[in-house]
Amino acid sequence: MSAHDTGADAGAGGRRDAEATRAAILRAVRWFLARQPHADITLKAVAERAGVSPPLVLKYFGSKEALFARVLSFESDADALLGAPLDRLGHHMVRHVLETQRHDGTDPVLRIAFAPLHGDSGDVLRANFHAQVIDRLAQRLTGPDAGLRAELALAVLLGFGVMYGIARGPAMRESGTDDLVARYGPLVQAQLTPDAG
Amino acid sequence: MSAHDTGADAGAGGRRDAEATRAAILRAVRWFLARQPHADITLKAVAERAGVSPPLVLKYFGSKEALFARVLSFESDADALLGAPLDRLGHHMVRHVLETQRHDGTDPVLRIAFAPLHGDSGDVLRANFHAQVIDRLAQRLTGPDAGLRAELALAVLLGFGVMYGIARGPAMRESGTDDLVARYGPLVQAQLTPDAG
Repeated sequence: MSAHDTGADAGAGGRRDAEATRAAILRAVRWFLARQPHADITLKAVAERAGVSPPLVLKYFGSKEALFARVLSFESDADALLGAPLDRLGHHMVRHVLETQRHDGTDPVLRIAFAPLHGDSGDVLRANFHAQVIDRLAQRLTGPDAGLRAELALAVLLGFGVMYGIARGPAMRESGTDDLVARYGPLVQAQLTPDAG
Repeated sequence: MSAHDTGADAGAGGRRDAEATRAAILRAVRWFLARQPHADITLKAVAERAGVSPPLVLKYFGSKEALFARVLSFESDADALLGAPLDRLGHHMVRHVLETQRHDGTDPVLRIAFAPLHGDSGDVLRANFHAQVIDRLAQRLTGPDAGLRAELALAVLLGFGVMYGIARGPAMRESGTDDLVARYGPLVQAQLTPDAG
């Protein structure tokens, strides 16, 4: 992948750096995936919506399949989301979701809330979420019902992103980060280390 | 509204009763609202997707605007969701979401997770969710930060529906209703009556 965009494909907004272009391409794929079957989405349409040329999409992502796999994967998101010791992981997860919501308008796991209930991309997204997020979290937990507790911890976390980013709860959006993490982190943590309370 | 459909508008599936027809019409409206602006959706298209005639839609819902208001409202859903005394409301909410998920494949508040971030129907849905669900719950709470606590309680609840109904967490789906309510109800209840713990 190229470290810098030459700017030749930039739209009316002027020069964009490579990171913004990559983000625009990923957003365009997500936009289409929420609206039509995987197989019907063309590279040309993705490029057009992202305001770049099809060759630039290939330069950044290699192939249409590699681009889609990237969009449907939670692998790198899970690295950041789960990157804390278990005894304070709940707070870290809430802080990470809140900070990415405030910075990017979405968060590392919220995509699963948009997974279509039918069709190939929904099934791939769900399978990836199970393997790359739920199972990975469950493997770090000790004690009984680790799988169920991992799901409930992630349920609590997903609700935070839905209420903040989609329902846009006004009191949440006005609250400070530390206050929200202090209130909500324990709800996630209680599933991870139920005996620590 | 007619108590019985004559069956004259029924599709290939054979006779439908009025309730199923009404549900099919509401599903059709939701399907379109997830895909195109409110103003672009015609009664004819809704009727066609629901497998009924446009006059039958009018017979059941009165007008296109009344039909849309019904789809975008949480009023009757909130009646059922919030219909329990405050000291056990958290458990009631979780049980109600779980039972409607198991029975209908969706729940009374999950629609907000599909609210488009831009456009008229998303804004109406969000405004209704704030007034008809968040504010209504907040008004029943005592103590400080009632608005924020109502949002956090609903965040926890929304996550339950997303994990169960969309992400389809396998351990949750295999668990018994009473076990899930006993585990998850206290997380909602803790926001409603924080001093009762």
